[in-house]
Amino acid sequence: MSRSTFVSFEGIDGSGKSTQARRLARRLEAEGRDVVLTREPGGSPGAEDIRKLVLEGDPDRWSAETELLLFTAARRDHLERTIRPALERGAIVICDRFADSTRAYQGRTRGGLGGMVDDLHALMIGVEPDLTILVDMDPAAALARAEERGGAELRFEEFGLTLQQEVRGFFLDLAKSHPARIRVVDGDRPPEAVEADIARIVSDHLERRP
Amino acid sequence: MSRSTFVSFEGIDGSGKSTQARRLARRLEAEGRDVVLTREPGGSPGAEDIRKLVLEGDPDRWSAETELLLFTAARRDHLERTIRPALERGAIVICDRFADSTRAYQGRTRGGLGGMVDDLHALMIGVEPDLTILVDMDPAAALARAEERGGAELRFEEFGLTLQQEVRGFFLDLAKSHPARIRVVDGDRPPEAVEADIARIVSDHLERRP
Repeated sequence: MSRSTFVSFEGIDGSGKSTQARRLARRLEAEGRDVVLTREPGGSPGAEDIRKLVLEGDPDRWSAETELLLFTAARRDHLERTIRPALERGAIVICDRFADSTRAYQGRTRGGLGGMVDDLHALMIGVEPDLTILVDMDPAAALARAEERGGAELRFEEFGLTLQQEVRGFFLDLAKSHPARIRVVDGDRPPEAVEADIARIVSDHLERRP
Repeated sequence: MSRSTFVSFEGIDGSGKSTQARRLARRLEAEGRDVVLTREPGGSPGAEDIRKLVLEGDPDRWSAETELLLFTAARRDHLERTIRPALERGAIVICDRFADSTRAYQGRTRGGLGGMVDDLHALMIGVEPDLTILVDMDPAAALARAEERGGAELRFEEFGLTLQQEVRGFFLDLAKSHPARIRVVDGDRPPEAVEADIARIVSDHLERRP
């Protein structure tokens, strides 16, 4: 029951994945499990410092390639200082975004870096989650929901609906190529219904572990 | 006369390479050439910020791999923002340390990362200087000279003479493998004599350019 598992949450902004990651963590903790809830970019003191360096200041401050290197440095630190130690003691690690987000946002959309992202991951990270929950949602619906709540619109304004649609399509294709690892959950429903689906998937995964 | 050239200086700490890089820059400027004198780690505003992040705080703050990624991010920024624009306008770029230092210090000494350094360079940097001046010196002589001057001892204390000897040996081997690019200059002589040798090598190189 306490063997380690690495679960990541992926999805477009406004899909509700961060809320769902928190809900899953709470649920598993209530079952008495050792859970570490973390996020990217960031997730360890060093990675949070790198996150600040990347996200502060002029948006043109870094080229796509330099930004990719900085995010990879942050991921390496997060992996070494937070994720691996937790897995080694048998915890369940729940991470809000991991390498699939880099593949989507830096690799395959907005004239992205393509194969460089995969090569750099293979060389410097080399780890995939045991299970990835893709909280899928139509970007227009996510946008409407974000506007209702207030607060998340800015990021949408910045990147635009077209990018969100591209990213959604990329995530769904990725899920098709990795059906054993990536499970798609329909995020356009009440949070309780989404949570119940995710709980079932994770519980099945934990029972089936070798 | 104004065609671009990328010259790097390498050598152990205390070898006098920074002094010689400055002297060469002054000499070429006096000839009316467009010269950009820069250094690593650092050399552009973004790279200097990354340098600070790497070098500040606890020495165990970053693993060797994370440090390598951060230095590579700094090099990429330095290359894009300082080195390439200068070369594109036809300048001579003189850089105090470049990728050979990473190969020596992060790749091949102190239980280094070996092939990972070369693979990361090939993937994310891919550029070599046209000419590298290796200011060679016996570490014991460099140490004696640093103590005379005061100020440079600390770094020697930190890493020790054994590492400096390893690094020197690595640089000399590298020069043997890349005789067309790397020219070895005996640094254990009066600065004026070293400067004259370097001036001759660089002047030959500039005349022979295709």
